[in-house]
Amino acid sequence: MPPKHLRLFDTTLRDGEQTPGVALTAEDKLHIARQLDRLRVDAIEAGFPVTSKGEMEAVRLIAQAGLKAEVCGLARTTRQDVDAALKCDLRSLHLFIATSDIHLRHKLHLTRGQALRKAVEAVEYAKAHGLQVEFSAEDATRTDIAYLKQVYTAVVEAGADRVNVPDTVGVLTPQQTRRLVGEIAEAVKVPISIHCHNDFGMAVANSLAAVEAGATQVHVTVNGLGERSGNAALEEVAMALYSLYRRRLRLRTRLLYETSRLVSRLTGVPVPPNKPIVGENAFAHESGIHAHGVLSMPLTYEPISPALVGRETTIVAGKHAGVHGVRRRVEELGFKPSEQQAREIVERVKELGDRGKYVTTTDLLAIASAVCGQPLAEERVLELKDLAVVTGTDVIPTASVRLIVKGREYVASETGVGPVDAAIKAIRKITDNLINVRLKEYRLEALTGGSDALAEVVVKIEDAGGKVISARAASSDIVKASVEAMVNGLNRLLQTQTTR
Amino acid sequence: MPPKHLRLFDTTLRDGEQTPGVALTAEDKLHIARQLDRLRVDAIEAGFPVTSKGEMEAVRLIAQAGLKAEVCGLARTTRQDVDAALKCDLRSLHLFIATSDIHLRHKLHLTRGQALRKAVEAVEYAKAHGLQVEFSAEDATRTDIAYLKQVYTAVVEAGADRVNVPDTVGVLTPQQTRRLVGEIAEAVKVPISIHCHNDFGMAVANSLAAVEAGATQVHVTVNGLGERSGNAALEEVAMALYSLYRRRLRLRTRLLYETSRLVSRLTGVPVPPNKPIVGENAFAHESGIHAHGVLSMPLTYEPISPALVGRETTIVAGKHAGVHGVRRRVEELGFKPSEQQAREIVERVKELGDRGKYVTTTDLLAIASAVCGQPLAEERVLELKDLAVVTGTDVIPTASVRLIVKGREYVASETGVGPVDAAIKAIRKITDNLINVRLKEYRLEALTGGSDALAEVVVKIEDAGGKVISARAASSDIVKASVEAMVNGLNRLLQTQTTR
Repeated sequence: MPPKHLRLFDTTLRDGEQTPGVALTAEDKLHIARQLDRLRVDAIEAGFPVTSKGEMEAVRLIAQAGLKAEVCGLARTTRQDVDAALKCDLRSLHLFIATSDIHLRHKLHLTRGQALRKAVEAVEYAKAHGLQVEFSAEDATRTDIAYLKQVYTAVVEAGADRVNVPDTVGVLTPQQTRRLVGEIAEAVKVPISIHCHNDFGMAVANSLAAVEAGATQVHVTVNGLGERSGNAALEEVAMALYSLYRRRLRLRTRLLYETSRLVSRLTGVPVPPNKPIVGENAFAHESGIHAHGVLSMPLTYEPISPALVGRETTIVAGKHAGVHGVRRRVEELGFKPSEQQAREIVERVKELGDRGKYVTTTDLLAIASAVCGQPLAEERVLELKDLAVVTGTDVIPTASVRLIVKGREYVASETGVGPVDAAIKAIRKITDNLINVRLKEYRLEALTGGSDALAEVVVKIEDAGGKVISARAASSDIVKASVEAMVNGLNRLLQTQTTR
Repeated sequence: MPPKHLRLFDTTLRDGEQTPGVALTAEDKLHIARQLDRLRVDAIEAGFPVTSKGEMEAVRLIAQAGLKAEVCGLARTTRQDVDAALKCDLRSLHLFIATSDIHLRHKLHLTRGQALRKAVEAVEYAKAHGLQVEFSAEDATRTDIAYLKQVYTAVVEAGADRVNVPDTVGVLTPQQTRRLVGEIAEAVKVPISIHCHNDFGMAVANSLAAVEAGATQVHVTVNGLGERSGNAALEEVAMALYSLYRRRLRLRTRLLYETSRLVSRLTGVPVPPNKPIVGENAFAHESGIHAHGVLSMPLTYEPISPALVGRETTIVAGKHAGVHGVRRRVEELGFKPSEQQAREIVERVKELGDRGKYVTTTDLLAIASAVCGQPLAEERVLELKDLAVVTGTDVIPTASVRLIVKGREYVASETGVGPVDAAIKAIRKITDNLINVRLKEYRLEALTGGSDALAEVVVKIEDAGGKVISARAASSDIVKASVEAMVNGLNRLLQTQTTR
């Protein structure tokens, strides 16, 4: 009997980890698995045990972690691969063999009959060892349909509990997916799963088309990681099912954003600003028309409430800004501009934008102070007076800083693993008795161009009360940008503390 | 009569530029417009003239640049907006007004009848001034369908040349798109255009569904830029039409990759590695099974030939690597490992991967030299002996280096805009008479974590003969990583020169 709710089978730790350049330690994998379990995905593909010793170790750790989700491992149709999975204490196995002629001929060097026999034997072997089995016909979508149905029918007879339809090279369209999955659903009576790749940007739409045709499980990855252009993104599939299809899910969608951040941090794969649901811009608005609309009524320009996925709406100041959005941003910064002043601020923001400049909070703060007459300097608790840094080979990276704190001068020096680390430590040496902060994140925004291009540094710092703020600074000198961002951040935290 | 080929209407410079945080100068916009024209898109939406003075200037520059593509500008249904477009010398206008009840009520404060009249009047005004007009009913996909058809019919009677169907908040599914566009195609006899947003990751699939239902023009942006989660990506729509739908396009697809790089550089929005078609991983393979397949026969794991979009296949070494892929990479680096040696190298690569480490070319070079017994040091023409750097506020960033070049020692110092710039200049001072190079790209790979996290620097340098190589280095000290990457790159260029 198919499950009442649609199952999400997360393969971030298997197909996602196969993203070129991504490698996770066993601890990282366990950390992500626990988060996926909190999020309440139905199944977690923990890895491909036979790959390496470390991979086996990681899969075993996850299998033994007492998670509520089904923990699954990948295996080819060989005893060696199945045995490796058994050694990890897995109860659930994802078995696969390629079935398309191109894979049989050029990769496996097997006839269709031989591949079919290998598939059946492996399923029988896994079932004899008490495993739950999901069977994948790799490259199913380029496989002769009659042969494909023959393979699925045979493995189901051999005991496979689910069959999965992988679009291995991502060549399906939604219409084709609907037709293919519909045909397979008529041929076999076990639950059908879909596994889409995003080579033409259609992984999510294809996954949903499969659901329309009767699939009851979707393979997904956090942030759409995976081979080449990745798999169907968990957050996109989940929110489309929830909001557009009104399907019941077990998922705690409010944890989607933090899950995305965690996976991005541990895999090192950045999430682009224009990524649906979890990108920085998914609920951000700059253009005047949009900002005005969203401030009057969020649904004018937001398809879902950002709170649903653990986020908030943000209004950005820039070249396309209008009065409503800029006023809101400036008020958030503590100013009370008149109608006239608000128009003047917008004018200046647009000028900056026309010059190709990204309007940062610091810029907006400077413009607002100039227009509204609240001198900025008075508000800054900290001021960076001097900074000196040395580094090199066989030189211990060292930094000294001179800070003005509420009118008094302090000097400190520190060493670190690099000049930025040293400078930030020196600043904290001075400010630690003033404010107790934790540097949550230090991010250098992608910097391209010559060696003299601008670098932009973003820091996120948290005070003892759990308040988190982010601040940024830009400079051609990466060390200076880092130090300025840190000083900006500390100032903003101190300001909110004094005005509370 | 609808055009024989499908039209691509590029709105990178309008909706794409509305991406929060993106601001382009007039020169940047012209630069992108010229590239889009080389790429042979059919129409270029150059901007929204009324937004700012700079925007008007930019649109005028593009309109007067003598491009082959239709150059279009956006306008609301007011005389002021249409006049602004006329002042830019535009011949083609994209007029819009919202038609959904939620927008009419909460944003425009108009009745349905009032909005209809404004639309018709604006179309008449624009046509009276000789403009070609594409009309958009903003938020069409949340508009009452009977009223929507009434609006489209009325503006076509008023002279609109095309109608566009914007899915403003990205809430369509492909099936709904097909139904909606089909209905509109029956109601009006002018060409129909589709404009999709990617809030649920379905912009591309929805655009293609519209084409299936009779739309003859698709709105796209390079890299899928645009409001919130962006628009349908030009490169994905184009390649899906070409490869999956076998539709005729005017586009020179081989320029897609360089177009994507240019737009990413000028907008500052990074392209994630798992972006279809143009991401770094779109044609990269790490896992043993995939690398083996691709090396035997590319089509096993690549949906299209990468050359079609101006790219190449890359094989990456890492934890999931197999013997075939690693051997190929090591051979590219100039080694000739035996079967036994290749296995040993794979073993060590996997160990590194298990520790969560991304296996760089430098790592692979070190492992291969250790296993194959070719001492690396002999091959290096340059060796960095000493580096010392100072920077700070009121300190001119200064670097000195000591390099061993073919056994002889050289010392040089230089100043720069920052410590990295200074150090790279100092190195080039020494090497300029040895090899004449141009630093084409300096990229800092996204760096997240504490201030002591590893930074990875990638440089691309070109010699006088036009040969380009890229090299990377990683260190907790950003200055050291930059200098080492530059030295690695120079060494690799010098090696290929001596072995030629």
